[in-house]
Amino acid sequence: MRDKKDKRDWKFRLHEIIYEADTPSGKLFDVILLITIIASILFVMLESVKEFDAKYHYFLNIAEWVVTIVFTLEYILRIISVKKPLKYIFSFYGIIDLLSTIPKYLSLIFMGTQVLIALRALRLLRVFRILKLARYVGASNMLANALKASRAKILVFLFTVLIVSVIFGTIMYFVEGDQSGFTSIPVSVYWSIVTLTTVGFGDIAPVTPIGQFIASIIMILGYGIIAVPTGIVSAEYASQHRGHFPHIPQPPQVDMNTEACPNCSAERHKDNAKFCYNCGHILNGRA
Amino acid sequence: MRDKKDKRDWKFRLHEIIYEADTPSGKLFDVILLITIIASILFVMLESVKEFDAKYHYFLNIAEWVVTIVFTLEYILRIISVKKPLKYIFSFYGIIDLLSTIPKYLSLIFMGTQVLIALRALRLLRVFRILKLARYVGASNMLANALKASRAKILVFLFTVLIVSVIFGTIMYFVEGDQSGFTSIPVSVYWSIVTLTTVGFGDIAPVTPIGQFIASIIMILGYGIIAVPTGIVSAEYASQHRGHFPHIPQPPQVDMNTEACPNCSAERHKDNAKFCYNCGHILNGRA
Amino acid sequence: MRDKKDKRDWKFRLHEIIYEADTPSGKLFDVILLITIIASILFVMLESVKEFDAKYHYFLNIAEWVVTIVFTLEYILRIISVKKPLKYIFSFYGIIDLLSTIPKYLSLIFMGTQVLIALRALRLLRVFRILKLARYVGASNMLANALKASRAKILVFLFTVLIVSVIFGTIMYFVEGDQSGFTSIPVSVYWSIVTLTTVGFGDIAPVTPIGQFIASIIMILGYGIIAVPTGIVSAEYASQHRGHFPHIPQPPQVDMNTEACPNCSAERHKDNAKFCYNCGHILNGRA
Amino acid sequence: MRDKKDKRDWKFRLHEIIYEADTPSGKLFDVILLITIIASILFVMLESVKEFDAKYHYFLNIAEWVVTIVFTLEYILRIISVKKPLKYIFSFYGIIDLLSTIPKYLSLIFMGTQVLIALRALRLLRVFRILKLARYVGASNMLANALKASRAKILVFLFTVLIVSVIFGTIMYFVEGDQSGFTSIPVSVYWSIVTLTTVGFGDIAPVTPIGQFIASIIMILGYGIIAVPTGIVSAEYASQHRGHFPHIPQPPQVDMNTEACPNCSAERHKDNAKFCYNCGHILNGRA
Repeated sequence: MRDKKDKRDWKFRLHEIIYEADTPSGKLFDVILLITIIASILFVMLESVKEFDAKYHYFLNIAEWVVTIVFTLEYILRIISVKKPLKYIFSFYGIIDLLSTIPKYLSLIFMGTQVLIALRALRLLRVFRILKLARYVGASNMLANALKASRAKILVFLFTVLIVSVIFGTIMYFVEGDQSGFTSIPVSVYWSIVTLTTVGFGDIAPVTPIGQFIASIIMILGYGIIAVPTGIVSAEYASQHRGHFPHIPQPPQVDMNTEACPNCSAERHKDNAKFCYNCGHILNGRA
Repeated sequence: MRDKKDKRDWKFRLHEIIYEADTPSGKLFDVILLITIIASILFVMLESVKEFDAKYHYFLNIAEWVVTIVFTLEYILRIISVKKPLKYIFSFYGIIDLLSTIPKYLSLIFMGTQVLIALRALRLLRVFRILKLARYVGASNMLANALKASRAKILVFLFTVLIVSVIFGTIMYFVEGDQSGFTSIPVSVYWSIVTLTTVGFGDIAPVTPIGQFIASIIMILGYGIIAVPTGIVSAEYASQHRGHFPHIPQPPQVDMNTEACPNCSAERHKDNAKFCYNCGHILNGRA
Repeated sequence: MRDKKDKRDWKFRLHEIIYEADTPSGKLFDVILLITIIASILFVMLESVKEFDAKYHYFLNIAEWVVTIVFTLEYILRIISVKKPLKYIFSFYGIIDLLSTIPKYLSLIFMGTQVLIALRALRLLRVFRILKLARYVGASNMLANALKASRAKILVFLFTVLIVSVIFGTIMYFVEGDQSGFTSIPVSVYWSIVTLTTVGFGDIAPVTPIGQFIASIIMILGYGIIAVPTGIVSAEYASQHRGHFPHIPQPPQVDMNTEACPNCSAERHKDNAKFCYNCGHILNGRA
Repeated sequence: MRDKKDKRDWKFRLHEIIYEADTPSGKLFDVILLITIIASILFVMLESVKEFDAKYHYFLNIAEWVVTIVFTLEYILRIISVKKPLKYIFSFYGIIDLLSTIPKYLSLIFMGTQVLIALRALRLLRVFRILKLARYVGASNMLANALKASRAKILVFLFTVLIVSVIFGTIMYFVEGDQSGFTSIPVSVYWSIVTLTTVGFGDIAPVTPIGQFIASIIMILGYGIIAVPTGIVSAEYASQHRGHFPHIPQPPQVDMNTEACPNCSAERHKDNAKFCYNCGHILNGRA
């Protein structure tokens, strides 16, 4: 009986360290992981720089193994400390955690064989470790809400950009033709998007007077259209901000604690919650 | 008598399928048409890619004929199901529907003759089918209203952009001259628009110190002017959003049903309308 | 006595035609002038296109003379119809009117002599005729007010852009040096402005890793800084829009009539004014 | 006794001249310094233009010495006139003042030796004099406050831009490869930032259809993401502006006087303050 309680306690403590940031050990775990993630992405990047890789290949290999072992440990600990491991494994972060760990192991298995090109792609998968950072971004809730609320309008906006690009791209293909790089409609549509979004690479540029005239219209359109998403987000954002008008009912406060249920991994519990809102399990150190 | 009613019923049902999206068959019709439109635009685009067309010309031809037949059927059904076909034929969507159908037929008639260049233009007309998609965008009403309300200010803004571009274009033509691509005033004005809208292709760029100084002024101007349309749209949009201030009378709700009058094709009936607001004709299944 | 009244009447009518747009003849005068201005600017532009000028030099010359004569007549009529001609002559529009008229006459005087380059500059002066169009823009008042109200903040913004550009320009000059086009600090500062304003010509671009890193910082800065003028104009504009909040005192209505005093040329009289607010002179057809 | 008071008076007056702009002599001091700063930056810039430096090296040298002497005097006077010189010396402006003065003196010491490259860097330090201008910008308080209040959201925004750039940069490196300039992941990430921020140099540009398709997604993303900082700043700025809604408590007025404590150099005293809020020292001519 005591042994079982001990084990549960041990699991409790582990869960608290890994999933929460309220205790010193929890914070330490997060900081170490954060540094490992950023370091690992830098290693992937540096590995792609030929001159650097040629010189320091040996050190990069070791560093990459260290990172892989840290991630393996983290992955195993996460599986152990939750009550429903399968739920974690097939969650968004579970898949990211796995994908960011395996490439180095796969490179061992296929060592010596000729699957080098596929391997190169697998190595790049490690960059997705950057998405692990998203776990630490809680302040983006309000922003995400503003974006979600204006989803329909954003779709209409994207749709408008696409229609305008397809139509002007086709016109430009007909007007300019091959001599200035408008070799096909898809390329012309690509150019239209480049121009409408005011990016303007300049690898393809109109040379005929009519082409330049139409390009001017696209540019001024793009210069004006940019006001639309801005206006949308501003208005949505302002409406989420309406706390400034005290006679209007306030939106409910977002609870910002890092508590996660040790049973079902549910997050965003109320700050004063003692039990999980999802499965009713007791929350660590609350009751 | 019974026969006449049957026919009217049949027409009624057809009208409901084609012009509305409230019934399962109406939705199916819309989805099929949507896919056809998008597929047909992809075909037009792929046809313009020389390598692709060389390989798959035969399949593209067949696919294009399938799309053309679907559009022909749609066009005929639309004419049959409205009471005043001429009104539909000369409406905006009627013309778009016709223009997106005929190019393939015209290619049959002029086959073998030497009107290939004009034919190429006609083929590209098929891209305008994308405008058919606009029929499915109802949520853009609010956006369109915001733009319409700030029309006068948008014109002043465009006008300002034009005046600034013409004046700076002329100055740059005089300052830079031929050596850096400013070969004539129209080209210099085009460059001014490219710069003011922050597109910046770079095919034409100032090389003299004075030219670069003036270019800097244009760029900072453009960087600042972009705030104007954004400010306009934000303010207009916010004022359309004033539902947040409950003590201010609300703008009337937009009726979002897909009902169209079987007699005169008028749209945007009130949600509870039983008769067409335009011609008084009874609306399908309402009364 | 009668003769004098006649003459005064004649002057009155002339003033009404030229300076106001409320009567049919006043509108006609405005439309003719508008067309002449736009045509004259097109002529100046086309004249700079070498191939066009080579072909149609004769016709452009005639067209330019027609425009010059119309502008001369307009200038003389404006001087005659105001009571204080000197005030008009030295006003902003008076100078623009003169500058847009004389270049063609000067080309006669210096014909045959060797002052061709200065002449070319004089010809381009004609483009400033476009500023005459500004006379017809009354709706920009609100916009201009919003800009004027946020003048101080716009200066701070411009100042920030300049400081950031000078500092990053100097750093880039030191980091990149000659090999990638950063030949001097002024050129590097120019490049910084090109980058910060998100124009990005690409004629000068960093090639060293450190240079590209610093360039990334400048770009993200520029991408963020653009929010500042937009925020300023939006807020100012919204505060000018406060009519939406009926419990807040409204700004006074702008009087939009085109009346101008026949004695002192003062504009923006109140809509129901009978006498000039500036000199007390009776206004045309009001009393 | 009298002598001591005289000396204190003299110091008082000096402090008032240097640190405040309320008296005529204080204004004169500020204007002279402003002109010197701007002139000195122009000299540094011109010195870097090889052709200009070759011609006018002698004059630039003299001008630079004049500026250096003015800055030396200013630096000494500032140290004398504050009661706690060390605090000034190690303050932000103290360091800027020193750094902008010494390069010319160091060039004397290392004259003839071979430390020319390091010297060149030191010379460029003089450009940081531009930061001295920041002292004269008081109106930016409101702006700075708006930025400070939305700091957390700006960080989330920057973080999002970075994650998006790293992920898309890696994808583009794999898709495009060496042939179009995507030689390594860091370079591809740099290109992603160039594209996402709508700068678009065009020195690196995708050439494969898939690469151009992904580039289109990045561009539209960047075109949309720009709305986020704008929305944030607009909303924050508007909330600082809430003076328009008189029934809501106003934020406290910013005190805009140029008074600085002669003892501890603290600034931003209340307009009616007689004693320093920081050290309790009496303020010049207030009590």
